[in-house]
Amino acid sequence: MSDQQARDLSAARAASGLDVRALGLFVHGDSDTLDSRTRISQTLARDPLFAGPAPVSRPDVYARSMAQMNRLYDLQETNGWTEHDVEAAMGMLGEGTGMTLHHSAFVPVFLAQASPELLKQFGTLVRTRGVIGCYLQTELAHGSNVGGLQTTATYLSESDEFELNTPTPGARKWWIGALGRTATHGVLQAQLILKGKSYGPHLFFVQLRDTETHAPLPGVTIGDIGPKVHNAWRATDNGFASFEKVRVPRTWMLSRYAQVTRTGDYVRPPHAKIAYGGMMYLRAGFTATAGWTLAKAITIAIRYATIRRQGALDPTSVDPSVSIPGAPVLEMPVLRYPSTYARLLPVLARAYVLIGLGRSVIATFKAFSESLANGDTSALGEMHALTSALKVYATNTAVRDIEVARQSMGGHGFSAAGGIGRIWAQYLPSVTFEGDNFVLDHQVVRAAVKAHARVSQADFKSQPSSLSPSSAYLRLLSASPPTFGSIEDWGDVRKLAMLLEMRAARVVAARASSDDDVHDPGAAARVSNAVAAAFVGVQVADMADGLDSSGLGKREQVAITRLYVLFLQSDLESGLGDLYQFGLLQGEDTGRTLRRALGRTCMDLLPDAVVLVDAFAFQDWELNSALGAADGRAYARLIERAEEDEMNVDEEHARMVFEESIRPILERGRRMAVKELAAKTKL
Amino acid sequence: MSDQQARDLSAARAASGLDVRALGLFVHGDSDTLDSRTRISQTLARDPLFAGPAPVSRPDVYARSMAQMNRLYDLQETNGWTEHDVEAAMGMLGEGTGMTLHHSAFVPVFLAQASPELLKQFGTLVRTRGVIGCYLQTELAHGSNVGGLQTTATYLSESDEFELNTPTPGARKWWIGALGRTATHGVLQAQLILKGKSYGPHLFFVQLRDTETHAPLPGVTIGDIGPKVHNAWRATDNGFASFEKVRVPRTWMLSRYAQVTRTGDYVRPPHAKIAYGGMMYLRAGFTATAGWTLAKAITIAIRYATIRRQGALDPTSVDPSVSIPGAPVLEMPVLRYPSTYARLLPVLARAYVLIGLGRSVIATFKAFSESLANGDTSALGEMHALTSALKVYATNTAVRDIEVARQSMGGHGFSAAGGIGRIWAQYLPSVTFEGDNFVLDHQVVRAAVKAHARVSQADFKSQPSSLSPSSAYLRLLSASPPTFGSIEDWGDVRKLAMLLEMRAARVVAARASSDDDVHDPGAAARVSNAVAAAFVGVQVADMADGLDSSGLGKREQVAITRLYVLFLQSDLESGLGDLYQFGLLQGEDTGRTLRRALGRTCMDLLPDAVVLVDAFAFQDWELNSALGAADGRAYARLIERAEEDEMNVDEEHARMVFEESIRPILERGRRMAVKELAAKTKL
Ligand SMILES: Cc1cc2nc3c(=O)[nH]c(=O)nc-3n(C[C@H](O)[C@H](O)[C@H](O)COP(=O)(O)OP(=O)(O)OC[C@H]3O[C@@H](n4cnc5c(N)ncnc54)[C@H](O)[C@@H]3O)c2cc1C
Ligand SMILES: Cc1cc2nc3c(=O)[nH]c(=O)nc-3n(C[C@H](O)[C@H](O)[C@H](O)COP(=O)(O)OP(=O)(O)OC[C@H]3O[C@@H](n4cnc5c(N)ncnc54)[C@H](O)[C@@H]3O)c2cc1C
Repeated sequence: MSDQQARDLSAARAASGLDVRALGLFVHGDSDTLDSRTRISQTLARDPLFAGPAPVSRPDVYARSMAQMNRLYDLQETNGWTEHDVEAAMGMLGEGTGMTLHHSAFVPVFLAQASPELLKQFGTLVRTRGVIGCYLQTELAHGSNVGGLQTTATYLSESDEFELNTPTPGARKWWIGALGRTATHGVLQAQLILKGKSYGPHLFFVQLRDTETHAPLPGVTIGDIGPKVHNAWRATDNGFASFEKVRVPRTWMLSRYAQVTRTGDYVRPPHAKIAYGGMMYLRAGFTATAGWTLAKAITIAIRYATIRRQGALDPTSVDPSVSIPGAPVLEMPVLRYPSTYARLLPVLARAYVLIGLGRSVIATFKAFSESLANGDTSALGEMHALTSALKVYATNTAVRDIEVARQSMGGHGFSAAGGIGRIWAQYLPSVTFEGDNFVLDHQVVRAAVKAHARVSQADFKSQPSSLSPSSAYLRLLSASPPTFGSIEDWGDVRKLAMLLEMRAARVVAARASSDDDVHDPGAAARVSNAVAAAFVGVQVADMADGLDSSGLGKREQVAITRLYVLFLQSDLESGLGDLYQFGLLQGEDTGRTLRRALGRTCMDLLPDAVVLVDAFAFQDWELNSALGAADGRAYARLIERAEEDEMNVDEEHARMVFEESIRPILERGRRMAVKELAAKTKL
Repeated sequence: MSDQQARDLSAARAASGLDVRALGLFVHGDSDTLDSRTRISQTLARDPLFAGPAPVSRPDVYARSMAQMNRLYDLQETNGWTEHDVEAAMGMLGEGTGMTLHHSAFVPVFLAQASPELLKQFGTLVRTRGVIGCYLQTELAHGSNVGGLQTTATYLSESDEFELNTPTPGARKWWIGALGRTATHGVLQAQLILKGKSYGPHLFFVQLRDTETHAPLPGVTIGDIGPKVHNAWRATDNGFASFEKVRVPRTWMLSRYAQVTRTGDYVRPPHAKIAYGGMMYLRAGFTATAGWTLAKAITIAIRYATIRRQGALDPTSVDPSVSIPGAPVLEMPVLRYPSTYARLLPVLARAYVLIGLGRSVIATFKAFSESLANGDTSALGEMHALTSALKVYATNTAVRDIEVARQSMGGHGFSAAGGIGRIWAQYLPSVTFEGDNFVLDHQVVRAAVKAHARVSQADFKSQPSSLSPSSAYLRLLSASPPTFGSIEDWGDVRKLAMLLEMRAARVVAARASSDDDVHDPGAAARVSNAVAAAFVGVQVADMADGLDSSGLGKREQVAITRLYVLFLQSDLESGLGDLYQFGLLQGEDTGRTLRRALGRTCMDLLPDAVVLVDAFAFQDWELNSALGAADGRAYARLIERAEEDEMNVDEEHARMVFEESIRPILERGRRMAVKELAAKTKL
């Protein structure tokens, strides 16, 4: 039996003529990235600390995870891994750790915003992890509304210090990753109070625990906030903390931009939002992460759908093992059902697009950071609008699509051994943290409406090129839509991207002219999505144009182009309501033709699906999936895992449950049955 | 602080003039149901076995769950609870148990399909739980394709027995609830083999374990299949089993319909699909379950959104507790943001609709079962189409909406203490079991296309009343659409329902005339949804008409009518793409007016939201939510739970992790920092 699944997956690989190495280089960017990633993954695969089964209790999961991190830093030292290598390795673990926030938030915020003195004092230790940090912003009662945070940092001119206080129970810091059990230090958001006046939230470096004993410092009360939904984020010690008269030197305020003088006077930052650079750095990373997370899920789902045979007979196959008379051929691989590939192939396309787009967003962000470091704040608004829109778009997409992939696996998709459940649960809070998506939607809409107002000004028409990339679609405000008659029209990436842009232009114009949130309470999410889809659409068209110089062979270019086309078709299909409402499309047949085109793209991609997921190059231990392993032996692995399960090994426990609960149920039942039968006989 | 939240929730209750008791009677159907439910829940709330914290390991969770079931049956005996009361109590547990499949599948299938002899022998014991049963259909390699099941039941005429065998590893029974550790007996689907010929799958009663020792019988290999995603379904021992030469008497084939004679000849059932009655019974229950599950989630979300204040200031409020200078008023309850209530109020509406609809579906099904018992099979096709369409519609809706509710709670929604995560994960497999939704979609579409073909026949027009309820929408195939000009038009339930019907008619006609799965691979899900929405829409309009005689007061009738209107508006809004594509609506403004109407309905409902969820009458222990308790004290409860968390209590464990992992990380960091600084100094 397990041979059949292995044969099916090999056959699928053989049937595609694509070069998996070439595709791997394309999707990873270059051979250094791909090869070092593979080398690191293989190193960890050999180490039972990484690839072994997870412990049962949360404290033990946390303990193992910290041991893994210690090992990773050890490997870094002995193997000369770069910081980037370590972070790649952390990504492979598939869950956050007590060190994640140090890397992702504490270090970048500290380095970007500490004053030169503080950097000199702590910069090296922060980078080498001689202190371990966290990022303390959210409070029990305040998250989205940063301005409403209630922790105070009051300047005491007598001692040239700030005093940190948690004035109410709701002002406790809450949700802070790595705070519960790990961090020795942190960066704290608190209301800056000078001479009795509040200057709004500012960041302060603070020590939380003794670095020798790890005990909380006097005045600091700390703990873990407890388990999260779906047993996710078990290894991360999200914590709470309150502060009572904790003092830090004045220089510990992160004062690269805003400052407080010795006399307790406030020095404004050069640009009101300049400190948002750090936040944006985090947000800029979301697109790539969404892409890679989707890649993992879709690898599992497509491999499983290739070896899962169910339903209609596949006349091209023969099954030697079946013993039921009259059933000599195998069933269809479920991937070949239209209603299955229509779910999975667009997800594959989105994984490829988000990975590619993620790389260019990070490059754009780096360029922006450099200008910012040189004092040029002109692109702040644009970067904010762009990273917000993409954060919402990428995270909503990935959360939806990972679950689509899981559901495609039928019953076995609900088994923890399938692996996708874990990926989804771990990814899920991305829609909430670093800006709740529904709160960010409003900011995207606000930026779009502002850009629309500028465009509508009389003098705009002379300089349409002044539009920023995130609002370039507005140039098409009054353009008339291209016609889509044939299936071929729906295969032209530029045309498809332009239709997404026109949609965005109409949706934003409608919003700007007449609708508001009260009248159309669902508008923000819709408008924000249309704006992001337009930007992404254009990027996809650019990526398609870039394929010629990608070094890919012809066949691979064709396959990648199909993914891009499918991406755009799928986005347009889900936007048909807008497209018709705003008159960008007309007539019943137009939508039907789009769907036929989408169906054809899927058919064309189908034979290459397995190789396209192989190119992501995940090792089996990373997928941690009985159903998605590279050799296809799904059923054999499910059986192995079940036989070892903790529910099956403890006979004493089984006897105990039988005696305490099952036997009493059965005996009561027999007693009642005897009574019932006796009553009947009496009648 | 916690006082503020309690005050907010009380104030919200006081501000609505609705009668919560009257609404409770309406939603529960009658006072007996509501009052006995409340009495039972209060009984369990007092028992630490039910309301206490869950154990950590799965075996212990299973053990506690079986102890709970034993206690419930005890309470049943001592308090004279009906079987219905026991099942209501099981529903309150919020998770399946080792006894769930006995109630939901084993008993109904056995009672409906066993022969009179077998019923006489085992019927009473089955009902009193003198044996504990499971339903063994799915195999490792076969689920959706029941015809492909490979377990065999071969008739041996020598001994007048069937021999049961598992011919291949893929033929192992798999996923079977209650099999892993609990069941003593089961109903088994196996290929019936007579004289070397297969007659397809049939059901057999089979003993699995000794009722005295609980050891598996000879030839039976059993175990638990292991954990499920998201730590869900922990208490249910879904299991695997294989059979080697296991014999059962001929009379143990469930032969109320199909039979095997002493000579091994096959006697056909009166109707090919008559045995599906049992399956349908299970499916008929899905609508109500979806409704009540949604009700639980939305109770939590709406209460929390009422006490969570965040963002813009609410000028009507004053906060005495804030110590930051210049912030005397409270922020807005997040429920008052349009983008929050636009997400939550339609979910509330769907909970009310699915609960009401669920009650009528079960009534319809009961009437159908009685005719079936009298040999009338005429309604089989209709019941199959209807229960399939509603199963897909209700489960897809609830899975989507519960997560919408969770996301609405921001960060705290990701805490396990929030409670909605658990509700979602437990509900999630409903989209897969009892017919994978994507497989069922095809059956719904097939039935719709068949009905369409009949309607298109020339002689149909003379008797349009011959349409069954599930295809009644086809009478409107060539009707011209009503006009929707004003906001008021969008408030007329009959008109809204008719528009949903017309949409279904157009979508089905298009499908029947030209599209197929290959050309439009996403069609099945879309068509199936349109068909179900049309049926549900008409039911909602009927429910609205029935309000006059519901015994509800005027104000309550108005509120419930608003829920029904919002339900229909929301369904139409998500169908705008179809409505425009098929020319049922025209012009940009029409869609905008629908959205304005929807916005207005939301505004009207907003002040009553809390009372409308109170009417569901869940007790706090059932919600098991720090955020959704009836008194509103969300923050206080989060703090309590965090302080007791297992991550915070074991100091020895904390010291161990520090010494083994954290200290080495810090020391390595300091060493590296010293090295780096030394290197710098040298330069
Ligand atoms: C796993 C995880 C890890 C985290 N790690 C950290 C960390 O390390 N450090 C840290 O500081 N924080 C952390 N957080 C907290 C996180 O940043 C916040 O939860 C997030 O910013 C959302 O804020 P909130 O919880 O206050 O949501 P809320 O603002 O309370 O949102 C509740 C609801 O109200 C709506 N809403 C709120 N304001 C508005 C508005 N103005 N307009 C319209 N609608 C509104 C939202 O859309 C949402 O539906 C973490 C959270 C999670 C889940
Ligand atoms: C929590 C849980 C409890 C369960 N309890 C029981 C139990 O007590 N007893 C029992 O017997 N079983 C039980 N099951 C099994 C359940 O009934 C099956 O998993 C379910 O019927 C789906 O079948 P499958 O797993 O074979 O899915 P598959 O058929 O393998 O589905 C895989 C994919 O293929 C697609 N697909 C399959 N066939 C077709 C087709 N013909 N056309 C188009 N697409 C197709 C599906 O849509 C899906 O995307 C349980 C399952 C779960 C998750």
